[in-house]
Amino acid sequence: MNLDIKIAELAKSLEEKTITRRRDFHRYPETGWTEFRTASIVLENLISLGYDVKFGDAVIDETNMMGVPSSTILEENMKRAISQGANSDFVAKMAGGKTGVIGIMNFTKPGPTVALRFDMDCNDIVEAADEKHRPSRDGFASMNPGCMHACGHDGHTAAGLAIAEILSILKDELAGTIKLIFQPAEEGVRGAKAMLAKGAVDHVDFFLAAHLMMPKVGYLAYDVQGFLATSKFDATFTGVPSHAGAAPEIGKNSLLAAAIAAINLQAIPRHSDGISRVNVGVLNAGTGRNVVPANAVIKVETRGATSKINDYIYACAEKIIKSSAAMYDNTVTISQMGGAANGSNSPKLTKTIGSIAKRLGIFNQYESLANIGGSEDSSYFMDKVQKNGGQAAYMIIGASLTAINHNLYFDFDEKALILEAQLIATITSDLLTK
Amino acid sequence: MNLDIKIAELAKSLEEKTITRRRDFHRYPETGWTEFRTASIVLENLISLGYDVKFGDAVIDETNMMGVPSSTILEENMKRAISQGANSDFVAKMAGGKTGVIGIMNFTKPGPTVALRFDMDCNDIVEAADEKHRPSRDGFASMNPGCMHACGHDGHTAAGLAIAEILSILKDELAGTIKLIFQPAEEGVRGAKAMLAKGAVDHVDFFLAAHLMMPKVGYLAYDVQGFLATSKFDATFTGVPSHAGAAPEIGKNSLLAAAIAAINLQAIPRHSDGISRVNVGVLNAGTGRNVVPANAVIKVETRGATSKINDYIYACAEKIIKSSAAMYDNTVTISQMGGAANGSNSPKLTKTIGSIAKRLGIFNQYESLANIGGSEDSSYFMDKVQKNGGQAAYMIIGASLTAINHNLYFDFDEKALILEAQLIATITSDLLTK
Amino acid sequence: MNLDIKIAELAKSLEEKTITRRRDFHRYPETGWTEFRTASIVLENLISLGYDVKFGDAVIDETNMMGVPSSTILEENMKRAISQGANSDFVAKMAGGKTGVIGIMNFTKPGPTVALRFDMDCNDIVEAADEKHRPSRDGFASMNPGCMHACGHDGHTAAGLAIAEILSILKDELAGTIKLIFQPAEEGVRGAKAMLAKGAVDHVDFFLAAHLMMPKVGYLAYDVQGFLATSKFDATFTGVPSHAGAAPEIGKNSLLAAAIAAINLQAIPRHSDGISRVNVGVLNAGTGRNVVPANAVIKVETRGATSKINDYIYACAEKIIKSSAAMYDNTVTISQMGGAANGSNSPKLTKTIGSIAKRLGIFNQYESLANIGGSEDSSYFMDKVQKNGGQAAYMIIGASLTAINHNLYFDFDEKALILEAQLIATITSDLLTK
Amino acid sequence: MNLDIKIAELAKSLEEKTITRRRDFHRYPETGWTEFRTASIVLENLISLGYDVKFGDAVIDETNMMGVPSSTILEENMKRAISQGANSDFVAKMAGGKTGVIGIMNFTKPGPTVALRFDMDCNDIVEAADEKHRPSRDGFASMNPGCMHACGHDGHTAAGLAIAEILSILKDELAGTIKLIFQPAEEGVRGAKAMLAKGAVDHVDFFLAAHLMMPKVGYLAYDVQGFLATSKFDATFTGVPSHAGAAPEIGKNSLLAAAIAAINLQAIPRHSDGISRVNVGVLNAGTGRNVVPANAVIKVETRGATSKINDYIYACAEKIIKSSAAMYDNTVTISQMGGAANGSNSPKLTKTIGSIAKRLGIFNQYESLANIGGSEDSSYFMDKVQKNGGQAAYMIIGASLTAINHNLYFDFDEKALILEAQLIATITSDLLTK
Repeated sequence: MNLDIKIAELAKSLEEKTITRRRDFHRYPETGWTEFRTASIVLENLISLGYDVKFGDAVIDETNMMGVPSSTILEENMKRAISQGANSDFVAKMAGGKTGVIGIMNFTKPGPTVALRFDMDCNDIVEAADEKHRPSRDGFASMNPGCMHACGHDGHTAAGLAIAEILSILKDELAGTIKLIFQPAEEGVRGAKAMLAKGAVDHVDFFLAAHLMMPKVGYLAYDVQGFLATSKFDATFTGVPSHAGAAPEIGKNSLLAAAIAAINLQAIPRHSDGISRVNVGVLNAGTGRNVVPANAVIKVETRGATSKINDYIYACAEKIIKSSAAMYDNTVTISQMGGAANGSNSPKLTKTIGSIAKRLGIFNQYESLANIGGSEDSSYFMDKVQKNGGQAAYMIIGASLTAINHNLYFDFDEKALILEAQLIATITSDLLTK
Repeated sequence: MNLDIKIAELAKSLEEKTITRRRDFHRYPETGWTEFRTASIVLENLISLGYDVKFGDAVIDETNMMGVPSSTILEENMKRAISQGANSDFVAKMAGGKTGVIGIMNFTKPGPTVALRFDMDCNDIVEAADEKHRPSRDGFASMNPGCMHACGHDGHTAAGLAIAEILSILKDELAGTIKLIFQPAEEGVRGAKAMLAKGAVDHVDFFLAAHLMMPKVGYLAYDVQGFLATSKFDATFTGVPSHAGAAPEIGKNSLLAAAIAAINLQAIPRHSDGISRVNVGVLNAGTGRNVVPANAVIKVETRGATSKINDYIYACAEKIIKSSAAMYDNTVTISQMGGAANGSNSPKLTKTIGSIAKRLGIFNQYESLANIGGSEDSSYFMDKVQKNGGQAAYMIIGASLTAINHNLYFDFDEKALILEAQLIATITSDLLTK
Repeated sequence: MNLDIKIAELAKSLEEKTITRRRDFHRYPETGWTEFRTASIVLENLISLGYDVKFGDAVIDETNMMGVPSSTILEENMKRAISQGANSDFVAKMAGGKTGVIGIMNFTKPGPTVALRFDMDCNDIVEAADEKHRPSRDGFASMNPGCMHACGHDGHTAAGLAIAEILSILKDELAGTIKLIFQPAEEGVRGAKAMLAKGAVDHVDFFLAAHLMMPKVGYLAYDVQGFLATSKFDATFTGVPSHAGAAPEIGKNSLLAAAIAAINLQAIPRHSDGISRVNVGVLNAGTGRNVVPANAVIKVETRGATSKINDYIYACAEKIIKSSAAMYDNTVTISQMGGAANGSNSPKLTKTIGSIAKRLGIFNQYESLANIGGSEDSSYFMDKVQKNGGQAAYMIIGASLTAINHNLYFDFDEKALILEAQLIATITSDLLTK
Repeated sequence: MNLDIKIAELAKSLEEKTITRRRDFHRYPETGWTEFRTASIVLENLISLGYDVKFGDAVIDETNMMGVPSSTILEENMKRAISQGANSDFVAKMAGGKTGVIGIMNFTKPGPTVALRFDMDCNDIVEAADEKHRPSRDGFASMNPGCMHACGHDGHTAAGLAIAEILSILKDELAGTIKLIFQPAEEGVRGAKAMLAKGAVDHVDFFLAAHLMMPKVGYLAYDVQGFLATSKFDATFTGVPSHAGAAPEIGKNSLLAAAIAAINLQAIPRHSDGISRVNVGVLNAGTGRNVVPANAVIKVETRGATSKINDYIYACAEKIIKSSAAMYDNTVTISQMGGAANGSNSPKLTKTIGSIAKRLGIFNQYESLANIGGSEDSSYFMDKVQKNGGQAAYMIIGASLTAINHNLYFDFDEKALILEAQLIATITSDLLTK
């Protein structure tokens, strides 16, 4: 239990640095697959702490990258990152949006492998600019138009670096291996799959991830259940335009193909095994009032209580979209834009976390959260680790949010950062000293 | 012009017989493909007048019969026909619904071939039984439940026999060939195609058909334009049933496939070349409230100002139906139930008819009817004759109807019968003496 | 515990009589609201056993009868019942389909009121006629065409009469009141509501019902959860017909209104609180291929894990149906055809039943059935009793079915009848002697 | 006929000036309701030629302006017009987009009133910038991004000013009144109605308008028939957003409301009286993939061979849109964005034009154009004049277009300008000297 105190002190000593880092990340937010500056800073820190690092092509599988911005946007953001202080060599190696980073430290004594995952990307939101919003008031609001950390990933990354530092300091007391996964593109559940495909958690015994959330600082939920499996995709219909008055019979109507698809997607039968969801969130079609519309795009997401249910919904959706296109003689392409597995915490690891957290006494409210009711792509990592016989857990840490996630007034109480760092560092130490 | 007078006298002398015959046909109406008794009487008359006759398999091509009743119904109606006086040998040869008859007379002198077409079938209507309806009052209302001559085909057939008799009497004064086509199943435009396929009008130079219609006796329209091309078909969807509460995801819903088809059929774009129509007249789907419905049928008709437009609508319809089935993982079969070509009278023959009619002076109102606005399968015969270089015309003869076609109070002024017989016999004689 | 043995012996002694009765009911099945003969036999038995009886208007509230056959059918079935042995006075008092019966016995000692519910109606199914079906082989197959006991209600009614007899024999040993509810029209969940509205379970402390089901004889499930709330209704659309070729703009298309309704009903959003279902099981529209269809009916059912969810689905459905009618300028009427509340067994009564059943030792497999996954209108009675502070339970009794419910080969092992009678009589005695 | 020669010479002498003006208008194109600079130049010219002018509020009825840009855009364009040479006083009086101009000259002798109409607005198109496009090559391509004269209205306005000059020179030889209507916002058929409402053609005896079109220079069609009546409108749906995964039942889905509307709009039945059209050209709905979409807009146009048919389509459309909104509990607003009446040339005036054109001998191909197959809002003026007992005609003048209307490579042979000016000036002189 000696370690508990050491970690508590280390965490305390890193508080100011961690808050400063968080505010720096907040000031320079980068959307999914463009985290060039963030990843560059992570890399520099991990290297200086003695971690072996892997990044770019070594940790991101190109064929599994979903929802990647255009090369023009990627290139602009690479330039922007460098102009905002990123290391240009690192950035160059992350070309194409391969902005994931993994830091590894093998301790001298043999032992298990613990992987920790932190997400780095921001949201596509214009941050509030008025005085009532602390980041604006205190001068750390976003400098990057249309980009904002409104989901706390700036805090996750900063806490991750604090944990990296604590564990590096304790390295002689630990056994086995620590693997720090800094993941891009969690928003839209796009990034985990590409890191998974490169083996990010292949030989991992314990996996941990956490999220700052609405409840007051002092709240901890460590038995998280019911991530919904999900898939996100766009369908793009292409028809033939024609003058709606003079030659209606020549047109191949993409708007109607997309409309028929949308309605029938919504009508996919429920599944008797559990929760299913489908949503067409966006439909854009046509160019002019008097032209038979020859282009349409729909943005769709499906969810299921299990991957099997989600696969059922997806299979129905694909059939519906292709048939709708065929009905109106359109071609259609479906692009995968994101996805996550279903999942739940491993019961044994959950128990371990619970007892450690209570031992530390740094939280004042412990709760099981029966159902997260949403999706998170750390579920891909959790699923893989659990299937390989390992244990995985996801924690929710109260951060007294000022507004709900994805809101332009989102901010949090930075005291949560050190609680997160101390908790995860302690759990990790426990797992690596047994 | 001597012949004009002879024909007028012959027609006059046949008036009573023709009216009696019409009333007999009215009393024993037979729906499409079951005209066993009617055809039998036609056969007996044509034979006694000296015509060569062809019927049954010789004039009806089985593969082109559309909308044929079940064999049970056909057999019942064969029995009924015999019990109502049909010749049982003739009936036997018309098994399967092959109730068409052709009477041919080759005159000694060479000359052109004139074909006349008469339709024999009744409607599926329960005839009015009250006193204000003359057939009921005078005792010649339908004896066959659910069957009624409400479109005047009883009159057409009776007039056809009068014409047959007149022409047979004049045979020494005529040249070439006369071909009398007594067609089944005009309702639903089902019968012409099967006779066409057996060559009914293959070597015909002139083709004539006529219909008794609403205007007063004395009205004649001889320049008929704009028959709509049409196709009639059923689509039968087959899915997979399942319990709607316990296992909705297993069902493959035929009701929804048919509903999606119906809506999108109605939405087929207009054609810029002219009139198009589509109608889903019937949709029946499902068996029980709590079962995902696994069967559905729709009854569809398309129309077009030209066969090209109708073909366009039909091609769209087929694509929509197949895509709707695919969308709900159903199989679907499309059965052709009827069809007619578009068409218009040949200008030269129209002119000939006009001058003959005016010469006879038996009508008091002559009109061009620009657009018939409906479909008639004599258009198949007209189209074929015209494509072979011949001439074809359709006439509308005023008959002072008591109610619109297909109404249970339908009746007509029988004076129109002899006007029809005299006119057509005279036109035919003219064509066969030039 | 002396009573246990008495009841066991009484049950044994009634076995043959009960099987004979069940086969008699099986031979003369009567569909919902036409159980004139069945109810008549129940009445005669209850009266002879000394029960006070209420029936007809006294137990059925006319305004809450759903899915009642036409008066013609009711009258025909009344005649049939009399010809098959029903008491004509009783039948007369059940005119209009009021075929429910309640037998009441007040014991001398004060005590609680126990209500038992048995359903009497058959299914609309043509029973299998071949040798492999025991009722056909042994001569007790249905004499009433299109009617078949394929859900075991013949057995329920027979077991009910056995229980009635046992309890009447034990009357001096019991306290309080026993109320035997013989309910019509359970199929389609139509009958309970009308009896509820007449106060069938108003002062009831304990309510019990049971169903024979698929598992082997010896199986008992006594902790039944998750009846789905449900509503059943028909929507009838009325438009304006017109000739589809000549005047399409005049028609007001009911087929399309119903099709649009069907698709959008299926697309009602899921509810985040739990299971929801909607099914359009039947759609019939239109009369002829070439007529714009001016009539349509859809048969719909909704379900929900809770009545609140079902009410949500129903409210959406009503809005969709009315809007679909408005869209096509149709009028629409919605007729309620059935309904049931959600529900679950009362935990305390469940426990009581479990311990009694185990005490008796007549079953060999005891199971909780977490989710019945369907609807049963005894849920209306259960809900009412529970809301009034009473306890209610539903049991599932294994009967080694030969085919699933509602199948034309449905039959069961009649040994289950006496197990049912013995169990329910014993539970009732226990409740009425404490 | 002396006048013919004078006009020919005047037209010739104005050719260079007219081409220069057309190229100036082409260089500074202004979209509907923002023709501040164009109208300012028209005003200056008309005034200098001695016309009485009315403009701004005096000729544009605010309540009948359809599809007006936002006030921000209007103000920006006012500033742009001034910076590009417009008279700032005139521009100020046209605030709000009231950019119509009427020039009137009363001749001393009494006589009829002839109105000529010219349209001034450009298209919302990015003009081709490459060398193969003459306006780019010769330096008169659009200076206003996203604005391009791709429908020849630059030519119409320039020709109009030439005609104004010719008639002012001949004023002593003319009788009656000439009224020159320079109309804004013809694209989208938005501008005529607002000028009509201010009485633009209230006392007009003859009305003329013309359009440069595809055929070679030398072509003239003077018997134009079959303008389609049309209405253009947007429907904006507003629902309630919600998280598609966590609370789908709370959302009120605007995307589905709009999709259902689009499909059913397309399914409005054909009209038996003649051509009908409906097109949903644009549908935009939703903001994010995982949000139940709570906003949608559709851009719709209807057309009909007659105003009655168009009104029928519009009435159906309104019902469908409102019912679709009701079905998904959305509110909806419909905004009128344009409209035109049906119409055809007055036969007598057509004849007059034909004989004048042939007399002049300046064309080499004279054609009746049976059906224009589109819509033009000069039809509102024509309809009004004809209903008041006057005569109206529309002419199509061949201009050897380099690309179809509304194409980014659109250009024309400027020789057509003087042909147009000479023809219309001569017809007008003829009408004003009889």
